Amino acid sequence: MTRFRYLSFLTDYGLEDGFVAACRGVAARIAPHASIIDVTHLIPPGDVRRGAAVLAQTVPYLPTAVHVAVVDPGVGTARRGVAVAAGDSVFVGPDNGLLSWAVAASGGAARAFSLTNRDLWLASVTATFHGRDIFMPVAAHLAGDAELSATGAEIDVADLVTLPVPERLIRDSIAEGEVLTVDRFGNVQLTITASDAAEIGLESGASALIRCGRHRLTVPYRDVFGAVAPGELVAYADSAGLVSIAVNGGDAAQRLGLPPGARVSISVASPTIRP
Amino acid sequence: MTRFRYLSFLTDYGLEDGFVAACRGVAARIAPHASIIDVTHLIPPGDVRRGAAVLAQTVPYLPTAVHVAVVDPGVGTARRGVAVAAGDSVFVGPDNGLLSWAVAASGGAARAFSLTNRDLWLASVTATFHGRDIFMPVAAHLAGDAELSATGAEIDVADLVTLPVPERLIRDSIAEGEVLTVDRFGNVQLTITASDAAEIGLESGASALIRCGRHRLTVPYRDVFGAVAPGELVAYADSAGLVSIAVNGGDAAQRLGLPPGARVSISVASPTIRP
Amino acid sequence: MTRFRYLSFLTDYGLEDGFVAACRGVAARIAPHASIIDVTHLIPPGDVRRGAAVLAQTVPYLPTAVHVAVVDPGVGTARRGVAVAAGDSVFVGPDNGLLSWAVAASGGAARAFSLTNRDLWLASVTATFHGRDIFMPVAAHLAGDAELSATGAEIDVADLVTLPVPERLIRDSIAEGEVLTVDRFGNVQLTITASDAAEIGLESGASALIRCGRHRLTVPYRDVFGAVAPGELVAYADSAGLVSIAVNGGDAAQRLGLPPGARVSISVASPTIRP
Repeated sequence: MTRFRYLSFLTDYGLEDGFVAACRGVAARIAPHASIIDVTHLIPPGDVRRGAAVLAQTVPYLPTAVHVAVVDPGVGTARRGVAVAAGDSVFVGPDNGLLSWAVAASGGAARAFSLTNRDLWLASVTATFHGRDIFMPVAAHLAGDAELSATGAEIDVADLVTLPVPERLIRDSIAEGEVLTVDRFGNVQLTITASDAAEIGLESGASALIRCGRHRLTVPYRDVFGAVAPGELVAYADSAGLVSIAVNGGDAAQRLGLPPGARVSISVASPTIRP
Repeated sequence: MTRFRYLSFLTDYGLEDGFVAACRGVAARIAPHASIIDVTHLIPPGDVRRGAAVLAQTVPYLPTAVHVAVVDPGVGTARRGVAVAAGDSVFVGPDNGLLSWAVAASGGAARAFSLTNRDLWLASVTATFHGRDIFMPVAAHLAGDAELSATGAEIDVADLVTLPVPERLIRDSIAEGEVLTVDRFGNVQLTITASDAAEIGLESGASALIRCGRHRLTVPYRDVFGAVAPGELVAYADSAGLVSIAVNGGDAAQRLGLPPGARVSISVASPTIRP
Repeated sequence: MTRFRYLSFLTDYGLEDGFVAACRGVAARIAPHASIIDVTHLIPPGDVRRGAAVLAQTVPYLPTAVHVAVVDPGVGTARRGVAVAAGDSVFVGPDNGLLSWAVAASGGAARAFSLTNRDLWLASVTATFHGRDIFMPVAAHLAGDAELSATGAEIDVADLVTLPVPERLIRDSIAEGEVLTVDRFGNVQLTITASDAAEIGLESGASALIRCGRHRLTVPYRDVFGAVAPGELVAYADSAGLVSIAVNGGDAAQRLGLPPGARVSISVASPTIRP
C-alpha cells in the first residue's frame, strides 16, 4: 500500500553541490511515485534553530507528507535519527530539536522510533551524509510500503530532543520576546505573537514603542508595508501570526542591526486612532 | 474537467525561507494533478520590471499553463489581483504591470478578471502573503475545475496596468535604447532588437560603436562569445532576439558599469567584413 | 516506446534568470511524462571541471536517466554536442570534457553520437543558448521515443573529449594530490581517495600530516566532524570516498586558503591509536 504521495525536504546542504540531487535520486529509486516539495536548502550551515522555525511555519501549508529535515552538525556522532508521527504526517531527521517545533505545530508527537533498522538504509552508509544514506531512504520507504514501526526501536516521545519554545512573556503591558527569524526581505520576525499584541492593546492603527538594543523606536503598527512611506519602519502581524518589523521597500534587520536571538520588547506608544 | 496540467511560478520570495514551499504546498492540496515549473524566485525584492522581463522572455518556451507571478511591493494595499487570459494560458498575479510584457508576448489580454471571489482563496487570508493565500489558490483552482469567470468580476482588459514598453528608437542610423536586464553571467541585454541592428546595417562580422555613459567603445558584433578572445568585449543577438553585450568568460555589466535602465546607443563602426 | 522516466539537469545557468525554466518548459512540451531532477545550476560560469566533478559524484545516486549537462564556454563555436550511452543512461551535452568523469563513473562510454540531426532540435536555434535549443530538446526526445542513433552521426568513443583524470599518486608513503572541489560548507575535497589513505597506513584514529602551500599541519583523521572540538580541523573519508579536510562547524577552504587545484600531500603523522 502506498502511504504517502509527498515528501518534503529541508536541509542546510545549499544548492551549489549535488547533495540535494543525490537525495532526490535516492528517493526516486525507492519511491518513484512520490513527489518532493523542497522547503529550503539554504538553512545556514548547522543552524538547527532556524531550520526548526522555517519548517514549523511551512508545514501547516504542506500536504500530508513524510517531512525530511536535515540540519545535522552532529552527523555521525551519538545523536540518533528518528521518525516521528504527528498529525497525519511523519517527520524524519536527526533527533537534535530540528523537528520539534514542526511536530508541535502538527499536533505533537504521537509515536517515535529510533532509526535502527538498517534494511531501510542504503546498503553502504557513509559517516557524514546521513541525509542521502539514512534519512531519505527511510523516508522514501515510509512513502512506499514500510510501516512506521519498521524504521527501528520505538522510543518514548517524551525522550525526543526539543528546542526550547521561543521565549516571550507579557509584563506590565509590555510584550517581551526576541528575534525568531529574518527573512529574505530583511523583515524581522519576533517571537511575540499577534495575540500578544492584542493582549497589550496594540491594534492596527496604533503606534508601537519598540525597544531593542540601544534603539527605542516609535513605529506604526499597520496591516501592510504599503501603509507607510517607502523607507519607513512598520510593525505588523505577519503571515505566520507573529509580530514583525519591516522597512517598506527596505531591509529592517540591516537598518536596526537585529539578528536572530536579539531581545525586543513592544508596548503601545499612543492610543489607537480609529477612523 | 482538468484544464491545465502546468503551473509556472515566478516570485521575489527568495529560496532561503519557506515561502515558495508554502505556495507549492497550497497548490498540491488544491490541484494535486498539476506540475509546477519554477521560473525564478530570485527577482530582486520588489523589482517589478525585472520580473516582467524574465517572465516575458521565458513564457514562450513554457507549456500552456496557469502562470503565477508575484512581485508585489504593494501587497495588501489597493492594487487588485487579476487573472488574465492570453493565448492558451492564464496569468495570475498583482495588477501592477508585472504580467503585462508576458501577456503581450502571449498575444495580448483576451479577458481579465479581478480576483474578488473569496471562495477560491484560502479560508484565512493574511495581509502580506497573497502569493500563498490568494494567487496560488486561485491559480490551482483554475488548473483544476474552476472557470476563469469564477475568479471574480470581469474587467476591461484596457484597464489592466501595463509597464511602458521598453524604450528604443532608431534615428540617423543609430539605435538608441537602454539596458533591459543583466543576467547571471553579467551579460548586458539591451532593449534594442536584433532587427533594429539589421535596420541600421549592423550585421555579424561588423564592429559596433557603443555609447554608454562616459564609454565610447568599438566592439565586434558576432554570433557567439567565443568569436573573441577571452576577456574581450563582444556584442551579439542574444537568445531572446535582443542585442546584448558580453565579455567572453567575464562580466560585462561589471566591466562597463551598466545597470538596468542605463541608456545605450549603437551604430555601425566599420563596414561589414565579408569573408 | 517511452524509454526514460527521468532527466537530470546540471548547468552554470544560475537561478536568477529564466534560463533553467525555459529548458524545463521545452522538456515538458516534448516529454511531458518525464520528471526532471536538478543536479545543480550553480556551477561557477564556465567551470567545466567543477561541473564534471559534481556530476560524477551525483550520478551514482540518480535513477537511470538522460543526464543533461551544460557548462559550455564554447557555445556556438566548433565544439560539437554529443549524446553518450554509458551504463543504462545517456549523457547529453557539449563535448568539452564536462560529461567525461560521470561517463567513466557509469562504466565508460559504450556508444557516442554527434548531435547533427536538427529534427530533434527546436525549430529556431540561437547561437548562445544550446541548452534550450539543442541539448534539452534532444534529451527530451531521447526520453520519449527517439533512438540514440537518431541524434546524429555516430562517433568513435575514443574521440570524445575527456578531462584529465584528477591527479594523485603515492610515493614514499606520501599521498600526493590536489583539491578537487570545495563544497557549500567549505569542506576541502582532495583527489586522494580513502583507499590511498589506507595504502599509506592512514586510518581513522591516526593523525595526518598535511602539506599544502605554506601550511604543514597535523590534523586528526577521523570518521566525522564531531570527533573534534568545534573550530578544529579534521581530515576524513567523505561521502564520495575521497579524503577531505573540514573545520567542525567552520570553513576549512577559507581557513587554509585552499582553492580547487591547489596541491596537497598527506602522510601519517603518528601511529594509529587503537582503543
